[in-house]
Amino acid sequence: MSKKFQLGLVQLSVGGDKGHNIARAISFVQEASKKGANVVALPECWNSPYGTDYFSEYAEKIDNSKNTESPSVTAMQRMAIENSVYLIGGSIPEKEGDRLYNTSCVFNPEGKLIAKHRKLHLYDLDIPGKIKFQESSTLSAGNKLTVFDTPYGKFGLGICYDIRFVEYASVLTAKGCQILCYPGAFNKTTGEAHWELLQRGRAVDNQVYVCTISPARHSPKENPSPSSYVAWGHSMVVNPWGTTIAKAEEEEKIIIADIDLSKVEEIRKNIPILTQKRKDVYSLPTEL
Amino acid sequence: MSKKFQLGLVQLSVGGDKGHNIARAISFVQEASKKGANVVALPECWNSPYGTDYFSEYAEKIDNSKNTESPSVTAMQRMAIENSVYLIGGSIPEKEGDRLYNTSCVFNPEGKLIAKHRKLHLYDLDIPGKIKFQESSTLSAGNKLTVFDTPYGKFGLGICYDIRFVEYASVLTAKGCQILCYPGAFNKTTGEAHWELLQRGRAVDNQVYVCTISPARHSPKENPSPSSYVAWGHSMVVNPWGTTIAKAEEEEKIIIADIDLSKVEEIRKNIPILTQKRKDVYSLPTEL
Repeated sequence: MSKKFQLGLVQLSVGGDKGHNIARAISFVQEASKKGANVVALPECWNSPYGTDYFSEYAEKIDNSKNTESPSVTAMQRMAIENSVYLIGGSIPEKEGDRLYNTSCVFNPEGKLIAKHRKLHLYDLDIPGKIKFQESSTLSAGNKLTVFDTPYGKFGLGICYDIRFVEYASVLTAKGCQILCYPGAFNKTTGEAHWELLQRGRAVDNQVYVCTISPARHSPKENPSPSSYVAWGHSMVVNPWGTTIAKAEEEEKIIIADIDLSKVEEIRKNIPILTQKRKDVYSLPTEL
Repeated sequence: MSKKFQLGLVQLSVGGDKGHNIARAISFVQEASKKGANVVALPECWNSPYGTDYFSEYAEKIDNSKNTESPSVTAMQRMAIENSVYLIGGSIPEKEGDRLYNTSCVFNPEGKLIAKHRKLHLYDLDIPGKIKFQESSTLSAGNKLTVFDTPYGKFGLGICYDIRFVEYASVLTAKGCQILCYPGAFNKTTGEAHWELLQRGRAVDNQVYVCTISPARHSPKENPSPSSYVAWGHSMVVNPWGTTIAKAEEEEKIIIADIDLSKVEEIRKNIPILTQKRKDVYSLPTEL
């Protein structure tokens, strides 16, 4: 396994026209690949405006055998194949029967769907005068944790609000993950206060790389968004020492970050917290 | 229970003369009390130079019924009684039989020892060229988590390296703590990289106040320290939103911070992560 690789994050501007969103995503993933990225990630809700009013309309079926009626899914598959990259497909609204999910698909360079994560913790919060959101009014939550292997390391996957839950990151780490990836669209209130803090915290507590991929703050001029939700932006990569090594601002942007997994090993050896936990005094969270 | 109180942190300069350290601690706790502090905390290893060469010489027995041969312990008891404060006694080296511990004592204003925490995670790390420390070469680790009640709220107690362990903080929070207190002496390498990050992380992940109390960077001129260990300083208080609300620099200093526990309740209501954890997918750490 290669210990060094390049990770590309696409902080896409997302608007109301799904076809336009897909076309731009294809173009940006291609550009990230040309810049050298071996693994490319899209933001949360990259094909749809973010909001409970839109999930149903933009949702697609995700089925590895036949995605012909799911243009965003087939597009992700093609992005992986055509650029020979591992594609972490941010998230899209998924429909299955009567239910909707906020779901991330991961494709390998052969176009195989190797992981599918349904947002585990729905974004229900209410900060009076600032932000109120009840994702659970339309979405159902996933029921499993998501890990996938690549030649570039073992990844753990969460979506947005999932990052607030320390136990989820602990379990992903216990399962061997070296990189935790959270496509996410924080807002201006929680983004300013917690976005970078949460990532740096997860990184230093688990001695892993952490990356987040947000939609850009604004939708494209030619493709405005009908949603009033304003994403924080600031997609970033944090190393296992807790240092932010790459960071976008608010606008549309491709980040390419050098990842070196020997840094994970080195820090785990220097400060061996993962083997010093006191299982005799407190139990650890364990996987399902 | 009062939801508002004042927390005093004494970032003491510590040297090689134990009597001098005790006298200064008495004086600073008195000053913190005069400034309005209801709860006063001392730093890790406040009566002794920090280093495995010194713990044995400076260690004392801790026994609530008779501490007559333990000048630091009787001094802490007196500090609590004479100033009518809850005294979180940072830590001192403790001896019991053949064993040594790094131990924090908490006294109520009546002089009763209401909690005793032995450092649970010993500080064994090795960052080549930067810092190497093997606390376990002389100290034994504690075997229990430590929580105590006061009229000002429920406190959880850890010492220094204990702050790196997310599960410990999760368990203290699950037991009802609103404030986590970590006397600690980080060094310049880990202090600069992680001291504030760890505290802000614990605060925002558990929606608690977090405070740390370090020795000052330098020993007093009239009482030099024989130890080569240089503490980071920067004692601080972080609120449950993850914002640092009070912070010392390197030098000796008393911090007085306004604590308002209604902020804990408010944030837990606004972003209810503590009740949204997915116990069906990952188990939570639980107490002994």
